[in-house]
Amino acid sequence: MKPTRSRLSKPMAPAVRDYTASVHYDRRLAPHDIAGSMAWARALHNGGALSDKEAELVLMGLTTIRDEIERGTFQWKADLEDVHMNIEARLVELAGDAGRKLHTGRSRNDQVAVDMRLYVKEACDQTVVRVRTLQRALLDQAEAHRDAILPGYTHMQRAQPVLLAHHLLAYVEMLERDASRFRDARARADVLPLGSGALAGTPYAVDRRALAHALGFGNVSRNSMDAVSDRDFVVEYEAAASLAMTHISRLAEELVLWSGEEFGFVELDDAYATGSSLMPQKKNPDVAELARGKTGRVYGHLMAMLAVLKGLPLTYNRDLQEDKEGLFDTVDTLNATLDVFAGMVGTMRLNTARMRATAEQGYLLATDIADYLVRKGVPFREAHRVVGELVQHAVAARKGLRELTLEEYRRFSPKFAEDVRAISVESSVRARNVEGGTSPERVARALAEARKMVEAKDA
Amino acid sequence: MKPTRSRLSKPMAPAVRDYTASVHYDRRLAPHDIAGSMAWARALHNGGALSDKEAELVLMGLTTIRDEIERGTFQWKADLEDVHMNIEARLVELAGDAGRKLHTGRSRNDQVAVDMRLYVKEACDQTVVRVRTLQRALLDQAEAHRDAILPGYTHMQRAQPVLLAHHLLAYVEMLERDASRFRDARARADVLPLGSGALAGTPYAVDRRALAHALGFGNVSRNSMDAVSDRDFVVEYEAAASLAMTHISRLAEELVLWSGEEFGFVELDDAYATGSSLMPQKKNPDVAELARGKTGRVYGHLMAMLAVLKGLPLTYNRDLQEDKEGLFDTVDTLNATLDVFAGMVGTMRLNTARMRATAEQGYLLATDIADYLVRKGVPFREAHRVVGELVQHAVAARKGLRELTLEEYRRFSPKFAEDVRAISVESSVRARNVEGGTSPERVARALAEARKMVEAKDA
Amino acid sequence: MKPTRSRLSKPMAPAVRDYTASVHYDRRLAPHDIAGSMAWARALHNGGALSDKEAELVLMGLTTIRDEIERGTFQWKADLEDVHMNIEARLVELAGDAGRKLHTGRSRNDQVAVDMRLYVKEACDQTVVRVRTLQRALLDQAEAHRDAILPGYTHMQRAQPVLLAHHLLAYVEMLERDASRFRDARARADVLPLGSGALAGTPYAVDRRALAHALGFGNVSRNSMDAVSDRDFVVEYEAAASLAMTHISRLAEELVLWSGEEFGFVELDDAYATGSSLMPQKKNPDVAELARGKTGRVYGHLMAMLAVLKGLPLTYNRDLQEDKEGLFDTVDTLNATLDVFAGMVGTMRLNTARMRATAEQGYLLATDIADYLVRKGVPFREAHRVVGELVQHAVAARKGLRELTLEEYRRFSPKFAEDVRAISVESSVRARNVEGGTSPERVARALAEARKMVEAKDA
Amino acid sequence: MKPTRSRLSKPMAPAVRDYTASVHYDRRLAPHDIAGSMAWARALHNGGALSDKEAELVLMGLTTIRDEIERGTFQWKADLEDVHMNIEARLVELAGDAGRKLHTGRSRNDQVAVDMRLYVKEACDQTVVRVRTLQRALLDQAEAHRDAILPGYTHMQRAQPVLLAHHLLAYVEMLERDASRFRDARARADVLPLGSGALAGTPYAVDRRALAHALGFGNVSRNSMDAVSDRDFVVEYEAAASLAMTHISRLAEELVLWSGEEFGFVELDDAYATGSSLMPQKKNPDVAELARGKTGRVYGHLMAMLAVLKGLPLTYNRDLQEDKEGLFDTVDTLNATLDVFAGMVGTMRLNTARMRATAEQGYLLATDIADYLVRKGVPFREAHRVVGELVQHAVAARKGLRELTLEEYRRFSPKFAEDVRAISVESSVRARNVEGGTSPERVARALAEARKMVEAKDA
Repeated sequence: MKPTRSRLSKPMAPAVRDYTASVHYDRRLAPHDIAGSMAWARALHNGGALSDKEAELVLMGLTTIRDEIERGTFQWKADLEDVHMNIEARLVELAGDAGRKLHTGRSRNDQVAVDMRLYVKEACDQTVVRVRTLQRALLDQAEAHRDAILPGYTHMQRAQPVLLAHHLLAYVEMLERDASRFRDARARADVLPLGSGALAGTPYAVDRRALAHALGFGNVSRNSMDAVSDRDFVVEYEAAASLAMTHISRLAEELVLWSGEEFGFVELDDAYATGSSLMPQKKNPDVAELARGKTGRVYGHLMAMLAVLKGLPLTYNRDLQEDKEGLFDTVDTLNATLDVFAGMVGTMRLNTARMRATAEQGYLLATDIADYLVRKGVPFREAHRVVGELVQHAVAARKGLRELTLEEYRRFSPKFAEDVRAISVESSVRARNVEGGTSPERVARALAEARKMVEAKDA
Repeated sequence: MKPTRSRLSKPMAPAVRDYTASVHYDRRLAPHDIAGSMAWARALHNGGALSDKEAELVLMGLTTIRDEIERGTFQWKADLEDVHMNIEARLVELAGDAGRKLHTGRSRNDQVAVDMRLYVKEACDQTVVRVRTLQRALLDQAEAHRDAILPGYTHMQRAQPVLLAHHLLAYVEMLERDASRFRDARARADVLPLGSGALAGTPYAVDRRALAHALGFGNVSRNSMDAVSDRDFVVEYEAAASLAMTHISRLAEELVLWSGEEFGFVELDDAYATGSSLMPQKKNPDVAELARGKTGRVYGHLMAMLAVLKGLPLTYNRDLQEDKEGLFDTVDTLNATLDVFAGMVGTMRLNTARMRATAEQGYLLATDIADYLVRKGVPFREAHRVVGELVQHAVAARKGLRELTLEEYRRFSPKFAEDVRAISVESSVRARNVEGGTSPERVARALAEARKMVEAKDA
Repeated sequence: MKPTRSRLSKPMAPAVRDYTASVHYDRRLAPHDIAGSMAWARALHNGGALSDKEAELVLMGLTTIRDEIERGTFQWKADLEDVHMNIEARLVELAGDAGRKLHTGRSRNDQVAVDMRLYVKEACDQTVVRVRTLQRALLDQAEAHRDAILPGYTHMQRAQPVLLAHHLLAYVEMLERDASRFRDARARADVLPLGSGALAGTPYAVDRRALAHALGFGNVSRNSMDAVSDRDFVVEYEAAASLAMTHISRLAEELVLWSGEEFGFVELDDAYATGSSLMPQKKNPDVAELARGKTGRVYGHLMAMLAVLKGLPLTYNRDLQEDKEGLFDTVDTLNATLDVFAGMVGTMRLNTARMRATAEQGYLLATDIADYLVRKGVPFREAHRVVGELVQHAVAARKGLRELTLEEYRRFSPKFAEDVRAISVESSVRARNVEGGTSPERVARALAEARKMVEAKDA
Repeated sequence: MKPTRSRLSKPMAPAVRDYTASVHYDRRLAPHDIAGSMAWARALHNGGALSDKEAELVLMGLTTIRDEIERGTFQWKADLEDVHMNIEARLVELAGDAGRKLHTGRSRNDQVAVDMRLYVKEACDQTVVRVRTLQRALLDQAEAHRDAILPGYTHMQRAQPVLLAHHLLAYVEMLERDASRFRDARARADVLPLGSGALAGTPYAVDRRALAHALGFGNVSRNSMDAVSDRDFVVEYEAAASLAMTHISRLAEELVLWSGEEFGFVELDDAYATGSSLMPQKKNPDVAELARGKTGRVYGHLMAMLAVLKGLPLTYNRDLQEDKEGLFDTVDTLNATLDVFAGMVGTMRLNTARMRATAEQGYLLATDIADYLVRKGVPFREAHRVVGELVQHAVAARKGLRELTLEEYRRFSPKFAEDVRAISVESSVRARNVEGGTSPERVARALAEARKMVEAKDA
């Protein structure tokens, strides 16, 4: 009979074992579980619940198990349900009665909570590192194409010319907020639950502050019932990941569009493109499409976790076991996506000539022409009307704004003079010389600041 | 270079290969993929695109591959991306140029669509079988406790007495709707997409009606662009599964509550219960809790798939690859949950004495007493008021309704006579003698009809 | 004191009244509520619980109330919580004690269930009508541009030429599945819950079959506990609506892209476009963008409803009140979107010259050239490789496939002969002459069938 | 023709106007919109784009409009689409050409972004205030019942005795994390987007730092394209609200259960309870049920917003208009729920006698008995087994642990001595004397700290 089934007169039905077993995925927590158990053994020892000899046996046993797991020789058994009981069972083999004492004053409820918090803290750190890598790839491209101008879009219609570097920096900003959210999430996860027992607190003399210090936690949980039933930190990672994937999905959408023949702004490196099983000519941006799709997957994990938690009475309920697979997959998906995007962005070729040509077409300078009238004293709403009609005329005449004659301009307002013809994509971009604007000067400064931010030690 | 990368000058970056590979999960489709390829080979042969000899080589090769997969000797290679290219590559090894001809007029786009539809049709069938099994377990318990009465609850407050069999039949009804939804989903999935090519239809002479017949499809897709980009059938399975899990989560909630000491209505068999790592006395309903939690997981998959599909332009986009893992996990989760619930429900012990005692306590007969007044000519709203005050009095006096004296009754209405004392949980239940009501007669009939429904041949 | 608070000694706290009141949105159910009450009054009368006179008073009262509501003179009161109590209170004013008898044997639990099912059935009907209208608008455009050819896309890369009508018919197909789902949802909603009482069934002699007939229901609920707690039909409408909105979001995405300068395939009518507050030249496809956004909103309602239902014990719980606002908004959103899309699709101008020109560019005929080689005996995989290299060459030489000389072709395979130059977008389209394919012949037939389907009487 | 439609030759179709209009809900932003416009007018004035006279006219006009709105005399017009154009149109009536100049260098894109950020910052503040109020209500109850002991539950099974104050403090902790998340969300929302123009930055000389200062923003956006397309701050509020509602749903679930007869731990005040339309005896916890249901609603809004944002290319797209209704409803729902819960929790009567009696029943002291053996030198796993068997025996004998004789104890281990009988719920609770544990001493300290935390000035 399993060590947890002391009161039950039968073994689990096989279907129940399969349904409840988690060791095939929670073994990922083994390094954290062992670290937690080592710290717990030392705490029990300090509190007198383990003798010197017992503590030594337990620590040696756990070290052996850690090695076995790292070397891949550890025998995981589904019958032993989860990572905790697998390790404990092996410890009893290695350390005998000393091993049987390790669970003194501890429950799987506080044990898994400490494992999960250690995992989430590490995941936050790893994600921030990858966010930085993608930011750097974006910055590298921006710095390499400082003068490139492309159409800025609203409603997917060409709106105003902008610097390519400005466009790329928009993503650097989004990712910066992501990093900030992961840091906040990490701070709230940085609370030691161990010592909460099953729900009421451990009755053994254990110095929880020392435990926290040993395991690298900055804080100690203040309420044992909350500590064993709280999974806010899982939701918080998943919510931050959902936003990060949202940002990547936006970049992905643009890369898909830009690599199509209609836009032609970018060509992905062949190493980051795929072909077709049927159509020999195809070069497809599958990585970007997959990332866009995987965004839905991460949303799904967030929604799943919220639904799991809704309406759960205190304290621990087995529903909480459903926290793991979704979280692990979220971490894996986000980190892999950040990695592969850094590579794809870093190697793609930007067709700045095509961008520039496209920015010249159409009516992207209409706002600048309205601003021209404003500077000549026309109220903005009136200028907007005048230029709207001018554009209607130009569309009907199949002409660009720079192809119109001064006479045509003056048909719509007598304020137009020869200098209206000097308005260009360059003058347009230069004019947006405000903090956060797309003028070359501002963008150069923004690039420098972003580089500093991304390369900061503590970043 | 892989067969799909004819136009690309470099191999995939390793990170891209890992990011895009699906063979670790889509190999589950292998039986369907091989069936589809065999049918396609025959169709090409009939249309003249494969010679007799070539068709024979291809069919033999595919048979060999099917055997290798079944025996576990097939070498799956992540480098070959997906199930389709793995099988095709092996086929070329086995059948040479004939194998290189199999993909004639076919694309992975229509190939994976046919695989997925075959999978979903099978999944629907398997789920309906399991729904039936759980319905039977519920019916067995209902039939075994035909006379048991327990409190019916609204707002988790005791409301009116009902038959336990009536309560259990409510779940049989929910599951019946689930079965009906899976049948509808199956019918809409029953459409052959093969022959749609990449998006425009195959240019080879292929009899799609014959193909459909060979693969057991009832219909042929009417539009190739829709056929390769449609995943409605995946969403539909997941939506039906979400409702089925919702129903199970309701049953789960009741089993969790009923097996607690406060209710004490049910005792799970030890084989379906778990213990605690710390608290020796615990007997926990983990299966029910996990099922409740896994409901969130299935919702998550539904939400993920909808988010994947939103805003995708025609036709195939790689985002669609994200249809598989969520669907597979949904099918596995739902089917396993139905299985383990059938076992748990079938073996649980219902404490009908406790149920009956609980139904006797409290004020569950208040509505019957109001109905008593109605029958004596008091308008219902007035009767409701009178009995409400009577209950207030009884609560204050710490008495049950049957403990009140006739005099006390008459203090609230002169219409009360001695026969009010005859109102009992039995008379209450008996009175609900309407179709769908809880009277023993009606419930007996409902049980018989449910049994017939569940055991029907075509069910 | 309100009629429901017989047992409570205090009025509701104002914050509770505001929090629980639903009359500001559930008054939408008033027509159904009155129809249900009229049918119930007749049933009570037939069963003897209402006298002739009382039944007449109640029916006259309800008729008056219906008129007052239609004329907008009815005084809705938040204090009376919901639509049911508002109508009942007014009925008591109008009909006195007869009004106080209407709630005999009925509960708000079965009352609101019947109202909601009547509402959902009507909503399904209305939605199907609107689906038909959008299908017709798509068909009108398809029929008006029977010969137009545009590039078909996979991965947003040009893939193969297709008929515009074929492309539009893909959406007709999606919408046809939607109509089919709403019909299925309606059929499962078509079950009378009235007579279920609070949870156990009504104790009054009521002919539920006659009730069902009077209210237009095809079936009678078989289990009262299920009947008052079931909201599957709400979820089912919302799930069908989520898929319908998904389809519209795909069309919306294409219209947004197609109306941009890069594609230039479509120009929305000015009545269906919007401008910019700042940029005078802008003509934006806001309707399509909003519809794409509103797709998320409908997903949210679905997810909300599932989360509401998860883990609810039997039978009625007040959580269920949260079924309404999300459903109403889903119905309104979907129906308005279908309406406005029918108008927008019907009035948009399709730039078939641009489509055609685009289809000529690039390498859309590569598959046809591979098929050419296959017909000359080259195995498909080999042909794929050859054409892939040919395209690499053409890209490097900045030539289209039709600009390559025969000599250039023959550099990649000796099988190429002069007739390879005859491959054109027309020949490509014509070749896909398979059921569901894009050949003009097949598409003409598909158009005719779709028209018949959409105009069918019972559609 | 509307001021934005300069280039369009037709008015909007009525269906389009209805579909796109937002003024019926975005008028809620009017105070923020006016504040933003006043600051913008001053910035234009300082930069020279408005004369002294014009600035004065605009500011006077906006003041008038603010008053009209506050007094309810402002005429909102759906034809004018949104809050911005309604106010601008009225301003032109009041201030003539000066009013026509206000939109100089500004777009609705940066205008609505600044309105929304002001709104979210205010919403965060208001929510934190309400979180504090609910925390205080919980603390009041905890302090009023310092000695009360009830069963702590895991898996909804009685586990170990805990102090009621400890249980209530668990919710104070959850709410404290919520407050912390709203503060983080507020900090990230505290960035001025105004001056970003449509997407590229304003070309007018505007001091954005001064603008930020005037509007109370701590930071200025660093990238105009990001600034007009970012809605992270909406998602972040909704994600924090989802967790807050999750916590409330857990408390709600407990209040529903505790107010049922089976638990009987709490009686809601009549002012916070509802009755039944049919069953006169009912006293239902509808507020708690509704809050539990509304949790799903808030999840839905979060999911909706994420789905809206997924895959949107830069910069502004009209899909973003869908940010508002969901956010407004989230804020309203969460704030109303916090308010009504504070009242309900503050007035509920806790039945501490029943709690205590329940804690005495069953086998909650089993862990303490195992700990007793551990202190006598038995390894914990062995002690767990012994006590498990002891409980099996007690269950079979229908005895509580304190009813067993010492002889019965010793049948399972010779280590048991007379002092095992001294183990009690008090000794159990007292033993959990660790930080975060349930011992009276620790809980008293936790109460004091929580009170200090909740009453802190800056809280």
